[in-house]
Amino acid sequence: MVDRDGENGIWWLKEVEEADWRVSRKMASPWLGQQSFGSEAVAMNNKGFRRGSFQSSTSDEDMVEIAGGALDFSITDDDPPLDREMLGGFSLYNGGGMNGTSQMMDFLEEPLPGVGTYEDFNTIDWVREKSRDRDRHREIASKSKESTWALIHSVSDAFSGWLLMLFIGLLAGSLAGLIDISAHWMTDLKEGLCMSGFWFNHEHCCWNSNEATFEDRDKCPEWESWSQLIIGHGEGAFAYILNYFMYVLWALVFSLLAVLLVRGFAPYACGSGIPEIKTILSGFIIRGYLGKWTLIIKTVTLVLAVSSGLSLGKEGPLVHVACCCGNILCHLFTKYRKNEAKRREVLSAAAAAGVSVAFGAPIGGVLFSLEEVSYYFPLKTLWRSFFAALVAAFTLRSINPFGNSRLVLFYVEFHTPWHLLELVPFILLGIFGGLWGSFFIRSNIAWCRRRKTTKLGKYPVLEVLIVTAITAVLAFPNEYTRMSTSELISELFNDCGLLDFSKLCEYVNDFNSTKGDNLPDRAAGPGVYTAMWQLALALILKVFITIFTFGMKVPSGLFIPSMAVGAIVGRLLGVGMEQLAYYHHDWTIFSGWCSQGADCITPGLYAMVGAAACLGGVTRMTVSLVVIMFELTGGLEYIVPLMAAAMTSKWVADAIGREGIYDAHIRLNGYPFLEAKEEFSHKTLAMDVMRPRRNDPVLTVITQDSMMVEDVEAIINETTYSGYPVVVSRESQRLVGFVLRRDLIISIENARKKQDGIVSTSIIYFTDHSPPLPPSSPSMLKLRSILDLSPFTVTDQTPMEIVVDIFRKLGLRQCLVTHNGKLLGIITKKDVLKHIAQMANQDPDSILFN
Amino acid sequence: MVDRDGENGIWWLKEVEEADWRVSRKMASPWLGQQSFGSEAVAMNNKGFRRGSFQSSTSDEDMVEIAGGALDFSITDDDPPLDREMLGGFSLYNGGGMNGTSQMMDFLEEPLPGVGTYEDFNTIDWVREKSRDRDRHREIASKSKESTWALIHSVSDAFSGWLLMLFIGLLAGSLAGLIDISAHWMTDLKEGLCMSGFWFNHEHCCWNSNEATFEDRDKCPEWESWSQLIIGHGEGAFAYILNYFMYVLWALVFSLLAVLLVRGFAPYACGSGIPEIKTILSGFIIRGYLGKWTLIIKTVTLVLAVSSGLSLGKEGPLVHVACCCGNILCHLFTKYRKNEAKRREVLSAAAAAGVSVAFGAPIGGVLFSLEEVSYYFPLKTLWRSFFAALVAAFTLRSINPFGNSRLVLFYVEFHTPWHLLELVPFILLGIFGGLWGSFFIRSNIAWCRRRKTTKLGKYPVLEVLIVTAITAVLAFPNEYTRMSTSELISELFNDCGLLDFSKLCEYVNDFNSTKGDNLPDRAAGPGVYTAMWQLALALILKVFITIFTFGMKVPSGLFIPSMAVGAIVGRLLGVGMEQLAYYHHDWTIFSGWCSQGADCITPGLYAMVGAAACLGGVTRMTVSLVVIMFELTGGLEYIVPLMAAAMTSKWVADAIGREGIYDAHIRLNGYPFLEAKEEFSHKTLAMDVMRPRRNDPVLTVITQDSMMVEDVEAIINETTYSGYPVVVSRESQRLVGFVLRRDLIISIENARKKQDGIVSTSIIYFTDHSPPLPPSSPSMLKLRSILDLSPFTVTDQTPMEIVVDIFRKLGLRQCLVTHNGKLLGIITKKDVLKHIAQMANQDPDSILFN
Repeated sequence: MVDRDGENGIWWLKEVEEADWRVSRKMASPWLGQQSFGSEAVAMNNKGFRRGSFQSSTSDEDMVEIAGGALDFSITDDDPPLDREMLGGFSLYNGGGMNGTSQMMDFLEEPLPGVGTYEDFNTIDWVREKSRDRDRHREIASKSKESTWALIHSVSDAFSGWLLMLFIGLLAGSLAGLIDISAHWMTDLKEGLCMSGFWFNHEHCCWNSNEATFEDRDKCPEWESWSQLIIGHGEGAFAYILNYFMYVLWALVFSLLAVLLVRGFAPYACGSGIPEIKTILSGFIIRGYLGKWTLIIKTVTLVLAVSSGLSLGKEGPLVHVACCCGNILCHLFTKYRKNEAKRREVLSAAAAAGVSVAFGAPIGGVLFSLEEVSYYFPLKTLWRSFFAALVAAFTLRSINPFGNSRLVLFYVEFHTPWHLLELVPFILLGIFGGLWGSFFIRSNIAWCRRRKTTKLGKYPVLEVLIVTAITAVLAFPNEYTRMSTSELISELFNDCGLLDFSKLCEYVNDFNSTKGDNLPDRAAGPGVYTAMWQLALALILKVFITIFTFGMKVPSGLFIPSMAVGAIVGRLLGVGMEQLAYYHHDWTIFSGWCSQGADCITPGLYAMVGAAACLGGVTRMTVSLVVIMFELTGGLEYIVPLMAAAMTSKWVADAIGREGIYDAHIRLNGYPFLEAKEEFSHKTLAMDVMRPRRNDPVLTVITQDSMMVEDVEAIINETTYSGYPVVVSRESQRLVGFVLRRDLIISIENARKKQDGIVSTSIIYFTDHSPPLPPSSPSMLKLRSILDLSPFTVTDQTPMEIVVDIFRKLGLRQCLVTHNGKLLGIITKKDVLKHIAQMANQDPDSILFN
Repeated sequence: MVDRDGENGIWWLKEVEEADWRVSRKMASPWLGQQSFGSEAVAMNNKGFRRGSFQSSTSDEDMVEIAGGALDFSITDDDPPLDREMLGGFSLYNGGGMNGTSQMMDFLEEPLPGVGTYEDFNTIDWVREKSRDRDRHREIASKSKESTWALIHSVSDAFSGWLLMLFIGLLAGSLAGLIDISAHWMTDLKEGLCMSGFWFNHEHCCWNSNEATFEDRDKCPEWESWSQLIIGHGEGAFAYILNYFMYVLWALVFSLLAVLLVRGFAPYACGSGIPEIKTILSGFIIRGYLGKWTLIIKTVTLVLAVSSGLSLGKEGPLVHVACCCGNILCHLFTKYRKNEAKRREVLSAAAAAGVSVAFGAPIGGVLFSLEEVSYYFPLKTLWRSFFAALVAAFTLRSINPFGNSRLVLFYVEFHTPWHLLELVPFILLGIFGGLWGSFFIRSNIAWCRRRKTTKLGKYPVLEVLIVTAITAVLAFPNEYTRMSTSELISELFNDCGLLDFSKLCEYVNDFNSTKGDNLPDRAAGPGVYTAMWQLALALILKVFITIFTFGMKVPSGLFIPSMAVGAIVGRLLGVGMEQLAYYHHDWTIFSGWCSQGADCITPGLYAMVGAAACLGGVTRMTVSLVVIMFELTGGLEYIVPLMAAAMTSKWVADAIGREGIYDAHIRLNGYPFLEAKEEFSHKTLAMDVMRPRRNDPVLTVITQDSMMVEDVEAIINETTYSGYPVVVSRESQRLVGFVLRRDLIISIENARKKQDGIVSTSIIYFTDHSPPLPPSSPSMLKLRSILDLSPFTVTDQTPMEIVVDIFRKLGLRQCLVTHNGKLLGIITKKDVLKHIAQMANQDPDSILFN
């Protein structure tokens, strides 16, 4: 029941592997085509997705729910099923794609609808998609000389990409603003209500108040806590308990709503979405993952989840939201609607816009998209991503959700430079970040695996409620956990000025030695000591609860909780250093730069460095992490500490386990993702990986001009492969081309219906001219148009490292293997992925998760 | 004589094309191997480079000069010639590279020295180089388990990349600091001398003075102009003429020295170096281009050229200097010294460090390297580049050449936000930038072509002297051209505050309406009007003289002159807008935001936007341009105007001509550079491009087990191809592998010397087991180890767009073409480049330069 929603929905590669192979062996398959992949697995699990339409074959309650949801999305998403939309469109879908050039021209046949589209849970063929776009572009360019209208069309086509980016930026920015404002308001709703207007959050409420003083900005008569509202006063044990109760109650209500909405309307809306987006961008198709229902539900439930006070952030899900915007807006332009490769370029840019609005860091967003999310990222996309990120950031700024006209989420301004010796604590923070990152990844993956494999996973709603209850009950007594995590981070990053009155800034001020803006290091007051204890407790809570939170069936980002852990540790260390420098400024290590009354340690900077280290340890981001943090401070001054911490953190974390959290989740869920960063370093050859293996039956092939329709149909029915090599003859095994199963089925069906004289004994030929046959034979069927005349081939002696490189860089689905010019076998993307996984398991250094 | 130095030295692809093809046709060659390429061209031009060593066959004076220089460099540069260094090294060079896996192991033959190295002016095989590095890595990793020492070696190997980056950053930063300080001092030397110490520049001289007031910072008794020094006073016509004369004289001395040094010691040190670095990074080998002589001479002559007051900048050449540092430091580590692909990763990072120190913009530097210079830029390199760029920037900052502890070249701080309506003038600036960019590229390329094809090119020294004389004579009377161009830009970017006393800030101040830091818009005083005229004249001079300057035989960058042109235009427009807003603040367009006394227009921002637009028009940078400019201001606030101008400028410039200045120079010089940005969009097939063509003789092949040593030697002597396909038999034409000419020659030579019984009639075989032969036949020669068993193949029907993509993404040197499993022909990188050039010429839209 639960196995199928959200991220567990596409479990096919990992969990069905055994069954999968059993079936294929039973069928004596020498090789498994890429396309059989998803549908097979799904079919075996009674999910009822098969061949593009939803032939729901189960009466499982959940099934209907999902199929219903998916059906809804499928209207806006991805390529249409066989019989839709294709008829009125451009004649772009001219068959084999790669051979859509000169051979096509002499073949006066209408392109068949459906030929060249993909089924759900399949991998796209990047080469074919790009070829298609070039064909389309060529057509428009050649037509543009004919008439003014065509010229305008050509120009508008060229600018449609920019227009799309503008729309994405505007929409993503607006949604982010909406989410920020709503989450702010609902977070405060857990504590009380504004009397001058229930739609004001705490801060706005007191801004509008005349009675709030600067020191007590947060206290004003207009804002009433729940105890004040219900029993009339806010003091005393009962009021505290009432407030406590209301806090927990609201948290439970919000999280219950969130999980029910996710379950009911958009199972794909849970989690952070980044692992799935990485997979989609690498060329996989998950219908509905970026659809309008997912967008709506994710936006709403994100607000609910954040407001419930769970240990999660909105940054990751914002990337998903932005990608949904991008995908939906793609439908405005034929160029992007109909081409999977072009659409993925747009999604890369949308991801950049998502991070841009999440942190107010457009450059960081673009680099995040480049480094972490995208698969194919040409320079043109870089420039457009930057534009989209900028538009999104400025849209958000004009909405001004933080009310301070700042673009960035955590605006920080530090006043004092750092000293070279401080690199030691910064590197310590880096080590902590790395350790925490790998600890978190291991524990979270272990927990998620347990959820998937035990009964635990059957009760997602209960799980969310329990975690929320625990979080809320433990969080309320401690003011640092009661506030929202992003407020906490803001406070930790803050450099204590004279005008700060938070507990963290309760220093024993000696106003005589004050000089200008730069406050000297001071002795910590009692407030600071209390804060230290509370922060330590908050740290313990955050560390453990986050492990259980990430992966639940609500939208949940990791950035904010990771940063919070790091910021707490950093601040603790920073305050420690500061007090050390104050009391022992005569020590040799401080003597050079920390005289009495000097301002030499900035605890806020330590918090920031710690946050970067922990975020780096969890996500393994590098440049984008440093740039995002840099955009928060706006000064190049502090890049070096950030860089030192980020580098250390990555090294430490990589030494313990190579995978970042997103890659670990991709592996956990078994998505077919070919990691572009890791080098394949084993000494196997193509012949070790290709199918058929040594003892398997020979490769199923189709001959170019000697098979009858019934022979081909028999092959289609007997095997489940996604495509078949076409050879000159079975004896010579000389390769002519490659034909896709799907195209073959559609073409034969079409010919039987529409073409006269096509019977089961008709010869199918793929050559240019029909083979010589006795005059009595039935009319023949020419299928050259669906034949891919340029399949990729490698020799059997090619090292797998090169094969992996080719698959990655060219985005192939399959590659044929030859020996001395004879066709020998085939390698599909799945074979490559399986092989990489096998080799990683053999290598004891690479076993990260048991 | 001149044709051979510097950038004109590698003219072979373009200019020798005719002769080249004539020769190959005469020899009835069906196809031209990649490697024959450079050496053929060189041989035909009597340059005497052939087969790796310098068999100087001419007595041309210049020849010796270059060969001498090149010989010097060759010690530090690139892979060693046949008989050096190879013997003691690792056993990495195990032959065919790609087949260096399991086949190699059972073949107990020592790898031959020289097998697997490259000759000068050749293209590297990325796949083979990367394979090699993986082999090396595997070996170290497998050994690391054996002993502690091997483990330390393995760890140090892993960190050597970071260490190298650190060194590059330190060296590049130090050199940049040295260049800045020297250039500053020598620029001021043209005007006078500091009496308190001749080593002080004007600014430092007056800082140390007690008598300088704040207003007259630049005037102090310690600094004496030449007239004061020689005739004792600085007033009057004679003093002016004397100063004028000294200015011109010093300029001539500096530029003469620069051009003589370049000619005498390092012809490769001229120009900006970026086109060549792009080519080198794409996989081409130019020995000595990044050698130690080039580094020394470029550093010295760059200072001289900048100081001479020519219209050039030091930013581009700094990239070259940083790459030289990177290349030289590579020799410290075997990993990088011996692998051309790994070394190129280092060079990419060094380029980032170069831009980082040029502008003080590390992020911009990394993006510049990614966007503009690099070819193969994996994420690991991104992160390392960032590190190198950061180290370099901070090294420079600790040297503090500008004396203001600022990292950036032009530090700007603006106080007022911009208004949405101002986007109109910003876009106008973008249009200007685009127009100027394409005008500049066309004129500069036309002039460079004229220099190459006419007698003009024979007198490089005279040319430099004449241009310097014209520049100096015209520049001195105008104070905005007399100052160094970077000072000019600084002044133009500057937002006039109350404490600015430059002519550009001579407004009629109404101190009554002053409020705080923000000065209201004011009426322009006479100083501003004078400045406008002088700037207009400076603009005309810069526009024209830069065309003739870029491409001369001195180091010359384009960034600064381009930015100067844009900054002048921007400032002019900005002041115009400001005055318009001041006098007509009641106009509808201003009424919303420009009331009387408001501060609404910042002319400095206009200058900055103009600079970005012009730089964008010339170089076609996009993201990196905006990020560099952003790092100068440090505020996200001003990204939108910069982005608007950069986008407009790129669109306008691209509409006129697709190529940026670097690509245009690459094309002018005929470097074999496969542009990664431009899509190939023609409908040709692999069969249209491959050799042999329809009427050519058949492809020269070697059979796998039936040819004798003398047959193979005959083929080697009769043809000039760089490699030969190995087939099963001539009849079947079934492909077995590919063998490189160079490897074949070395192996046969070696076998004849060392192996008993190898005579001319010995059979050469490439199979695993020797072919059955009569017992009387001489002993056979097994050459399987040098056979590349995994050559890349495509079918003859593959569209060229896909072939181009494969060449680009995998970095191939050649690709074999098959039809139905039979070997048909070959496509080399040169064929691809020629084809692209042909198609571009056929397409009337693409003809940019006649």
